[in-house]
Amino acid sequence: MLYLIGLGLGDEKDITVKGLEAVRKCKRVYLESYTSILTVGAKRLAEFYGKEVIELYREDVESEAFKILKDADKEDVALLVVGDPFGATTHSDLLLRAKEDNIEVKVIHNASIITGVGCCGLQLYTFGEIVSIPYWNENWEPDSFYDKILVNYKNNSHTLCLLDIKVKEPTPESMCRKKKEYMPPQFMSVKEACLQILKKLEKIGDSASPDDLTKETIVVGLARVGCETQKIVAGTLEELSIIDMGEPLHCMVIPGKNLHPLESDYLVPYATAETALKLKGN
Amino acid sequence: MLYLIGLGLGDEKDITVKGLEAVRKCKRVYLESYTSILTVGAKRLAEFYGKEVIELYREDVESEAFKILKDADKEDVALLVVGDPFGATTHSDLLLRAKEDNIEVKVIHNASIITGVGCCGLQLYTFGEIVSIPYWNENWEPDSFYDKILVNYKNNSHTLCLLDIKVKEPTPESMCRKKKEYMPPQFMSVKEACLQILKKLEKIGDSASPDDLTKETIVVGLARVGCETQKIVAGTLEELSIIDMGEPLHCMVIPGKNLHPLESDYLVPYATAETALKLKGN
Repeated sequence: MLYLIGLGLGDEKDITVKGLEAVRKCKRVYLESYTSILTVGAKRLAEFYGKEVIELYREDVESEAFKILKDADKEDVALLVVGDPFGATTHSDLLLRAKEDNIEVKVIHNASIITGVGCCGLQLYTFGEIVSIPYWNENWEPDSFYDKILVNYKNNSHTLCLLDIKVKEPTPESMCRKKKEYMPPQFMSVKEACLQILKKLEKIGDSASPDDLTKETIVVGLARVGCETQKIVAGTLEELSIIDMGEPLHCMVIPGKNLHPLESDYLVPYATAETALKLKGN
Repeated sequence: MLYLIGLGLGDEKDITVKGLEAVRKCKRVYLESYTSILTVGAKRLAEFYGKEVIELYREDVESEAFKILKDADKEDVALLVVGDPFGATTHSDLLLRAKEDNIEVKVIHNASIITGVGCCGLQLYTFGEIVSIPYWNENWEPDSFYDKILVNYKNNSHTLCLLDIKVKEPTPESMCRKKKEYMPPQFMSVKEACLQILKKLEKIGDSASPDDLTKETIVVGLARVGCETQKIVAGTLEELSIIDMGEPLHCMVIPGKNLHPLESDYLVPYATAETALKLKGN
């Protein structure tokens, strides 16, 4: 049996009782370590489970699925995924392969940022399509996420923005070498995401329509959702571009154009002084 | 402290380890019993926790919040919610009241149908706004959900349709009496939801545009997501209007107009014969 087990959002104790029971009877336990992170590492998980936990990176899950699936028709194997197992595309690919090999699969669901984001008080029912904001570099500034945000914004839907993660990325210099060297992990902060959006707004400049975002648009930054140190700040794009939200993981919401009064009320205690005034006037 | 604890989607063991630890130290434990259900009842939860579990219905949570919050500044009280605590609006209202009373609140997240629906292989990133389909009766056939589905459909986003639940609804005859009598609980099935949509399509009739749904539109019915007896069927609206998906809870997805090949592949094993052919030709 292949168990695909969600770990939820916080630490080692956010696994479900069912998930923990499954992990404890598995022969091999893998941890997917490239689409998200908990506030604790694989070592702490291993201690809590009383099991060895093998960390996997993108290249492993995508190219070496056969290793994970090896003997899974005869013994129990677990792949642990931060959040819910269906939060990332890669895993439905793995499930398809397991089915081809006639391996039984059991999914144990858990909290995902897709619902966890509700902690800021914005109604989950009025979220539109999710976007991912990728890191920009000198040569490449992909901004298709911005158009998707606008579709939601005009439609009065909130947009959950997932922020880029780079884990175990080879350094450019080692790309062609046999022995790769890796860059330190990078987790995009709310601050960095706001700076990229402000840069996009600058590019749009005078051709902005009344439906475009502005540096005064209210956004909600969230850090470490579901953890003891969770932090939520509501402020303008400009305000959040200078606020440090601390340790990863961060995400951000661009609320729809008009908030429900209950939503504004809920955000006020998290808002910067100026934004709190605006929310109260909503 | 007020704990708001998600129970996830399946049975008593879908609570997180953190959630279980919190429940076990609470003085009073309430269960919200009107927006969703597990496959097990309050009695089984109570046995598993070793605690009394007090069931609450809509009228209680909305009108008697003060009972739940009573002494929660001095002792630990838990409100258990099927799925994730932020799945229903009512709870953010309760949180606001707790804040007004200076009661500390801790939320323990869990799986919700909003992410659990990913088990059918449709990508969570391409879901648009969620809709709720209400029961129709002789006098009232509200269908604003249909327009929302169309917005997503044309935009190539999937729509998660949550199906109506009626728990502890007073019988019409007892509405004005002091001692209310209640109707048996009702949980809308995928079949019933499809029949209502087909009825709507009949009303539209000849004035249908090419963007409207038809009885040939492929939809995905899901029952008891996250449970041992989970069932998924992909078929046309017409096909699913005659298929019995069994015990509650059901929900349904209207996929966007064009599926990603990986999504079609994933749906094939769940599809009716005719729909499987269509999906393979996709």
